[in-house]
Amino acid sequence: MKKPIISLTSDFGVQSQGVGIMEGTIIDISSNAYVIHFMHGLPDFNTTAASRTMETVKSLPVGYHICVVDPGVGTKRRAIIIKAKRGDYLIGPDNGVLNSAANLLGGCEKVVEITNPKYMCEPISPIFHGKSIFCPAAAYLSKGIAIEKFGKKLRFEDLVKSPYNEAGMKEDSIEAEVIHVNKYGSLNLNILQSMWDKFGVKKNQIVVFNIWGKRVKLPFVETFGDVPESTPLMLKDSYSRMEVAINMGNFSRMYGANVGDVCLINKAPMRSRKA
Amino acid sequence: MKKPIISLTSDFGVQSQGVGIMEGTIIDISSNAYVIHFMHGLPDFNTTAASRTMETVKSLPVGYHICVVDPGVGTKRRAIIIKAKRGDYLIGPDNGVLNSAANLLGGCEKVVEITNPKYMCEPISPIFHGKSIFCPAAAYLSKGIAIEKFGKKLRFEDLVKSPYNEAGMKEDSIEAEVIHVNKYGSLNLNILQSMWDKFGVKKNQIVVFNIWGKRVKLPFVETFGDVPESTPLMLKDSYSRMEVAINMGNFSRMYGANVGDVCLINKAPMRSRKA
Amino acid sequence: MKKPIISLTSDFGVQSQGVGIMEGTIIDISSNAYVIHFMHGLPDFNTTAASRTMETVKSLPVGYHICVVDPGVGTKRRAIIIKAKRGDYLIGPDNGVLNSAANLLGGCEKVVEITNPKYMCEPISPIFHGKSIFCPAAAYLSKGIAIEKFGKKLRFEDLVKSPYNEAGMKEDSIEAEVIHVNKYGSLNLNILQSMWDKFGVKKNQIVVFNIWGKRVKLPFVETFGDVPESTPLMLKDSYSRMEVAINMGNFSRMYGANVGDVCLINKAPMRSRKA
Repeated sequence: MKKPIISLTSDFGVQSQGVGIMEGTIIDISSNAYVIHFMHGLPDFNTTAASRTMETVKSLPVGYHICVVDPGVGTKRRAIIIKAKRGDYLIGPDNGVLNSAANLLGGCEKVVEITNPKYMCEPISPIFHGKSIFCPAAAYLSKGIAIEKFGKKLRFEDLVKSPYNEAGMKEDSIEAEVIHVNKYGSLNLNILQSMWDKFGVKKNQIVVFNIWGKRVKLPFVETFGDVPESTPLMLKDSYSRMEVAINMGNFSRMYGANVGDVCLINKAPMRSRKA
Repeated sequence: MKKPIISLTSDFGVQSQGVGIMEGTIIDISSNAYVIHFMHGLPDFNTTAASRTMETVKSLPVGYHICVVDPGVGTKRRAIIIKAKRGDYLIGPDNGVLNSAANLLGGCEKVVEITNPKYMCEPISPIFHGKSIFCPAAAYLSKGIAIEKFGKKLRFEDLVKSPYNEAGMKEDSIEAEVIHVNKYGSLNLNILQSMWDKFGVKKNQIVVFNIWGKRVKLPFVETFGDVPESTPLMLKDSYSRMEVAINMGNFSRMYGANVGDVCLINKAPMRSRKA
Repeated sequence: MKKPIISLTSDFGVQSQGVGIMEGTIIDISSNAYVIHFMHGLPDFNTTAASRTMETVKSLPVGYHICVVDPGVGTKRRAIIIKAKRGDYLIGPDNGVLNSAANLLGGCEKVVEITNPKYMCEPISPIFHGKSIFCPAAAYLSKGIAIEKFGKKLRFEDLVKSPYNEAGMKEDSIEAEVIHVNKYGSLNLNILQSMWDKFGVKKNQIVVFNIWGKRVKLPFVETFGDVPESTPLMLKDSYSRMEVAINMGNFSRMYGANVGDVCLINKAPMRSRKA
């Protein structure tokens, strides 16, 4: 029998004890759960990087996905559960980190505010809702407790907005934002692959990537090895969005690009046949 | 049925193969165990940081907690198991890293030295007792082998002392030590919350934190968001002790404070009503 | 009943979501598997460090060991499974990272190229064969699918060669290569302990380690504490090879030594009895 999958994402240090304590809390309540440490060590308090990470739970089996990037912990910000149409539950603070994930998982089916102390771990720590509220919520959901039991229904459109919008596409350009930088220094942009397909760039066609006043020519390819070593490129990432990278190199370091930076992508002008 | 929880703490690199090998060793002996990677990547050979981490296993379910911060591996230092009154077993080298945890788990009920080769993994590596001695001990304990089988009884008071003492409290000041710095740069001090409560500082009262010749005013609050962004604060941490932090900032980097530093906390003088 | 052990090694960021997604992919196919995160965060694209890490799966129980250090992902490089004589299966790209592990696990019993789409996860990502090909292969193998079902047989000697050779031993010297540097800054060399034993250095005998034009005297000992603090030493590592370290110090930082560096070890001349 398949075990319910509960994933954990946080800006805690990788393998800080907070991470293990959240796992212990879940297992203590739902001994049959399968806990996956999805991503930890996100940049401190960075809701953009957190939102992007939560989007990528789409590549996990249907499950219960917790996000603890929560600079407002212990203040009046709400704790919420979103049920997504794919069947997943997203659990975390109402600070925008879950919205985009809900959209990519087919849209929001239901949202509730978590207020029922029955499904929390007492005493509630004012600085660690991951342990006191979010993990217990996921664990009880995984045991079959209905979402309605956790608190009153909210409207998806009343939640705090996502930290980033979708990119803006014009006929010849896309204005985008860097929403993640991975270990290799590749950039992930807020451009959905479905938007890119409409933008209409062909394989191996070159686009111009403008960032920090620099103009970088990027061939649009399928994989890194499609260009020579140390060459920049653009491709579809593994998680619904567009990625800018350097084959065997580090784009972020080379161009000083980071989460939150804006950039502009232009279709390169066709070369004139005349000089 | 609940699985026995075995937690692992080390100064190995996070996700170095040593970590996975310890997990494999445990599972090979006790296939029903649930292994939690509690904390790895502690500062090399730092018994203070290790001791502080082991204290926080109090937030895990009752279990078997292994510490492999062990600069004396392969020398004559003893390998020990402490049974704590809460029901947990603490397993590691006799270098002081387990004592404070035992105290916080209700006190020591029993200590034995691990000498019985029957519960070790042969051949004994002279540089990796985590694999050869500590993990097998935890795994066999989790299968119900009695602590007395592992070796002869020791007295808790004869163990190597903890790397830090409890803070010293006077009427108007506490002399303390930094025993941990987390990823956000917050400091954890060797002041128990029970001592702090006796010290008698009220919510929102300001104390003066002296470190490296600097004097920092800290309001005592419940959570980070109780003060404006970039403001220093003092609060109760999630694990029995006191914490110094900056809301949305990094105290350690700002003031150059690190594990082992001493500091003095003064009650701020009441302001005179006269000029 | 023992669960099949599947280990994961990659140059992905430690706890990047790619790591969790590979775990989810495995569990979705083989719900009884026990996944061990063996090592992540290896230096980007570094096949030497990857090969060395894969060698050390010898310290895990017999299992299914995946390596995703794969700069050629999506190009024509082959995906392979090696069955080793000890009983383990090694799964990854044909870029040399699995060969040395196979040798240390008793030799290669069989190799196949993975080409059968039945045991892949569609759609195949051109940049993430860890998820689309390697993890599904390990998961299906762990459920008992025979290796022959995955594709056509290859010859071990036709695979891409290991990124490093075994060290070269002469009567009084060994020419070696640094194949790993761990978190403590200790160096692991491509010298098998069996070669070292033949080289004939006695316990506490001093050898001269030549690197970057420096000559460092190293006593050959059993454990770090056999020499005073801050003293360099040579010992047998936990994984079949030789290690150079500093007791309570960092050899790599002190001497600027890194993966890929070559070094020469000389037997120190016997001291003459005359002045």
